Amino acid sequence: MLQYKAPIDDIRFLIHDVFKADKHYSEMSFGEDFSLDLADVVLSEMAKFVEGVFLPVNRSGDEEGCQYDPETRSVKAPPSYHGAFKQFVDNGWTSLSTPVEHGGQGLPHLLNVVFDEMCASTNTSLSMYFGLTHGAIVALEKHADEALKDRYLNRLITGQWTGTMCLTEPHCGTDLGLIKTKAEPVEGGGNEYRITGSKIWITGGEHDLVDNIIHLVLAKLPDAPDGSGGISLFIVPKVTPDGERNGIYCTGLEHKMGINGSATCFMSLENAEGYLIGEPHQGLKYMFSMMNSARIMVGVQGLGLGETAYQTALSFARERIQGRSLAGAQQPDQPADNIMVHPDVRRMLLSQKTMLEGCRALAYWVGMNLDMSQHHPIDHIREQAGDLVELLTPVVKAFITDQGYLVCDQAVQTLGGSGFTKDWGIEQLLRDCRIARIYEGTNGIQALDLVGRKLPMNNGRAVRHLINEMVAYADVCKDHATQARLRHGISVLNDVLAWLAMNALQDREVAGAAATPLLKLFGVVTVGYLLAKSADVAQEKLNGGDESSDFLFAKLKTRDFYFAETMVQVDMLMELIKSGKRHLMAFNDAEF
Amino acid sequence: MLQYKAPIDDIRFLIHDVFKADKHYSEMSFGEDFSLDLADVVLSEMAKFVEGVFLPVNRSGDEEGCQYDPETRSVKAPPSYHGAFKQFVDNGWTSLSTPVEHGGQGLPHLLNVVFDEMCASTNTSLSMYFGLTHGAIVALEKHADEALKDRYLNRLITGQWTGTMCLTEPHCGTDLGLIKTKAEPVEGGGNEYRITGSKIWITGGEHDLVDNIIHLVLAKLPDAPDGSGGISLFIVPKVTPDGERNGIYCTGLEHKMGINGSATCFMSLENAEGYLIGEPHQGLKYMFSMMNSARIMVGVQGLGLGETAYQTALSFARERIQGRSLAGAQQPDQPADNIMVHPDVRRMLLSQKTMLEGCRALAYWVGMNLDMSQHHPIDHIREQAGDLVELLTPVVKAFITDQGYLVCDQAVQTLGGSGFTKDWGIEQLLRDCRIARIYEGTNGIQALDLVGRKLPMNNGRAVRHLINEMVAYADVCKDHATQARLRHGISVLNDVLAWLAMNALQDREVAGAAATPLLKLFGVVTVGYLLAKSADVAQEKLNGGDESSDFLFAKLKTRDFYFAETMVQVDMLMELIKSGKRHLMAFNDAEF
Repeated sequence: MLQYKAPIDDIRFLIHDVFKADKHYSEMSFGEDFSLDLADVVLSEMAKFVEGVFLPVNRSGDEEGCQYDPETRSVKAPPSYHGAFKQFVDNGWTSLSTPVEHGGQGLPHLLNVVFDEMCASTNTSLSMYFGLTHGAIVALEKHADEALKDRYLNRLITGQWTGTMCLTEPHCGTDLGLIKTKAEPVEGGGNEYRITGSKIWITGGEHDLVDNIIHLVLAKLPDAPDGSGGISLFIVPKVTPDGERNGIYCTGLEHKMGINGSATCFMSLENAEGYLIGEPHQGLKYMFSMMNSARIMVGVQGLGLGETAYQTALSFARERIQGRSLAGAQQPDQPADNIMVHPDVRRMLLSQKTMLEGCRALAYWVGMNLDMSQHHPIDHIREQAGDLVELLTPVVKAFITDQGYLVCDQAVQTLGGSGFTKDWGIEQLLRDCRIARIYEGTNGIQALDLVGRKLPMNNGRAVRHLINEMVAYADVCKDHATQARLRHGISVLNDVLAWLAMNALQDREVAGAAATPLLKLFGVVTVGYLLAKSADVAQEKLNGGDESSDFLFAKLKTRDFYFAETMVQVDMLMELIKSGKRHLMAFNDAEF
Repeated sequence: MLQYKAPIDDIRFLIHDVFKADKHYSEMSFGEDFSLDLADVVLSEMAKFVEGVFLPVNRSGDEEGCQYDPETRSVKAPPSYHGAFKQFVDNGWTSLSTPVEHGGQGLPHLLNVVFDEMCASTNTSLSMYFGLTHGAIVALEKHADEALKDRYLNRLITGQWTGTMCLTEPHCGTDLGLIKTKAEPVEGGGNEYRITGSKIWITGGEHDLVDNIIHLVLAKLPDAPDGSGGISLFIVPKVTPDGERNGIYCTGLEHKMGINGSATCFMSLENAEGYLIGEPHQGLKYMFSMMNSARIMVGVQGLGLGETAYQTALSFARERIQGRSLAGAQQPDQPADNIMVHPDVRRMLLSQKTMLEGCRALAYWVGMNLDMSQHHPIDHIREQAGDLVELLTPVVKAFITDQGYLVCDQAVQTLGGSGFTKDWGIEQLLRDCRIARIYEGTNGIQALDLVGRKLPMNNGRAVRHLINEMVAYADVCKDHATQARLRHGISVLNDVLAWLAMNALQDREVAGAAATPLLKLFGVVTVGYLLAKSADVAQEKLNGGDESSDFLFAKLKTRDFYFAETMVQVDMLMELIKSGKRHLMAFNDAEF
């Protein structure tokens, strides 16, 4: 059975000690009552909630799946989800970081990131019924007129209704410029339109957990220019304001490898009533405005799923006895030693542990900067924070989901045959995690976003600042071996960026070829920086006589493990990037 | 839907051109009628059979699964398997490389390796009902007395009955010394014993495709010494020679992530009638004698599953249009270019293609050497071939299943969201492939086998010979860039082996820590050698005016891709190995 206790120690260590969030948040305005002491209380409540309510219906949701009834075109969510979802709404977990003026709690987004991690750890599928609602809330809040806000925001924030994002169509996912869904203005209807088309991959497009579902729909107006500059954003409720069933229906469910408790719907818009959000043809821009938080959420799914996989694998390894230590029997009174004596098993477990802690640091760092980019009173801090969020969001999304998936995979391997069975449940985490590398923009698209959009932003201002910060830290890094290796990693990153500037400007395919290994290099080095810093902070606390010494000593060893096992990839990644595009483009179609 | 055509061109190229099998097999005795021309005919028939009979019931088998009836303790295999299994038996595919004197066809084992690949490509689960029978045949042939041979061999070889291997028990998988199953001699019963115990993970332990199932069972005699030196091997038929239902029952099925069409059984032996094979307490040795072919078979499952995943991904990529080439529109008449214009998509596809071709070369090379080790008339060739098989069997098993799994994973990613759905079927390949890295000895165990048993064999004779062969080839390698990189790879391997000899003799945990990256290094370098050689052979054929030029040119580009993308790992692997054990062993239990 899956084992999970929220990693509260690590979460608090990161927030308070590594990122000194107390200092930053004290300078931002999050309502009079907010303090990080309150945040600590919230964290404990979160842990209690997900462990007690979400985790127990994780496996049942996978087994029950979602049921589609073609007669009524309705969808039943897993029956075991109903009670948990109700508690989720009743306890106010939907409104953590949403604006107070619309019924939200106005807490920092960082707490949402933490909560997203815990939800993914305990029930990714269930959490997704509300997951995309947050995007709908942000879009409405930022771009909709007051009438639409009044009508929808409050009930989305309180979880009375859920939201969706209707982007993808059967012939286009990544390339939204190709969408065919049409919106016709209703004559004399003011902001009202009639929308017709087909959408696929709509998470929570139809289900029976709430009475109304608020769809955000991308569609083209009759006068729309071709391509991605001709897309507008509409709000299309399942039930219209006058209580009628609107013409937006689920026409079937995807049959998937994982996240079986989450209803992934084919949707048909049949002259559905909808209302334009903001200006015409600005839909893609509005979508991008909520993309950072959505992508961070998906990145954090990789982290959360990995965490439960690791905890379960560790619990198995501690109990499984098999074979003897290569150094001689360690438990001579037992018929065999437990498998944690084997270096190979330890490598599997420690790869999981160290990568998770590194990815958590990365995700929270970006989460805190998201708050700072919106709330910090000092302009240049807000700007720097915004740069960091833009730059590292694709890394959070792609690197953490790739690594989180590997963690789940290593956890399966740690259990051997038991990992392959449904009894232990890790195989479900692996299946559930597989989609995180695909949706919200495949990880290949994230890499192109990093190379093509984020690196060149403001003439490279964001990446320069990140590198400067890492260099400055390396100069004061307390551990000399780490210092040398970190400096090497940073210099490789610098070197690669210079190479790219030289070579990719003339040939964009070279940038395309470099994108995926470059994103990985960013992830490896940035996580290395954060783990080195965490270890120094731990060392300081140890020097100061802190007594939680297992946790703090482990931070030093975690850093050492990461630098021995993961930082060694940087030269290989550089070589790979510098091999350019020739070996990729040389094959003609018949040669594949 | 899954796409698969047997890669006959590549198979023939390897057998005839790269490995010059014609020369080797002409010196061995495989019955008067055998020639490699006959083998070519057999290959075409194989392809027709698996494409037409196995593939069509691949998905249905996954969906139907196996059904257990607790009343009768019986198992129904997927209904759609029955017709395909009957054709499999009727067409004689069970007896390819089994001895003529017991009704087999006496063909080279290499053909079996090819057939195993094709079966895994088209229906891994179905093929496993017969897969382990081969091990039972080998064990009987080598170690059983004539009476047992007469009674069982013929009907196992013709596929009238199937066989199992009953090794694992609930508390022990890897460490068989811990087994508890007991065998009591029957007084005055000659070779007859009564066997009692529990076994788990028994593939095909019970099913309705045949009338009788012949179990090979590891058990302990009353006077058995402790540990692995006290295990004996028994044959336990489901139906005894006098037609009685024997006391060996299925008590349940595993619920698994994949290979759902394969019945993975909990078995209970309840005073079951069994007969000792060979000598008492020699069971583990006998098991090892059939382990090479079983491990090669599992390695080849990774290859076969990967091949179908790749072909399906390629077919998808050729049809999917989305976005534009970074070099400007390539199909301006269409609304978008097909996704094969993108460097990142090409990398995913080419990683799959090149790794599969390299792994196929590795598997067939070892398969051919297995034949030579048994049938070659010249002593030292037989010995060298045997060395190669021993040395590389763990590499075939672990490296190819790890890489085949990555191929399936990359294929899923190539399809994006479609890869995650059941419609395309690649997700099933990924799930089916996951177990190959675990069963027949986890890949971690394979690495320990390589480091702890295979490298030291005869004072390192096998590995020295392999390295000499690669060095000799590098000297005559026609492509200079390849030559330099291959030499570097070989020297890294040499260097690591020297380091290991220095460091691991005093400390076996250092060897344990090195095992997994070392096995990977072996795989990467050996596959590099084989792809370099293949490219040179292709170049020769091109120089000779061969007209199948797409295939042959692709071999050159495949080598270039592999050396640019995969051989770059060697330095990192070396660094990882030389980092030793400290970072792995430093954590105490509370620090995990």
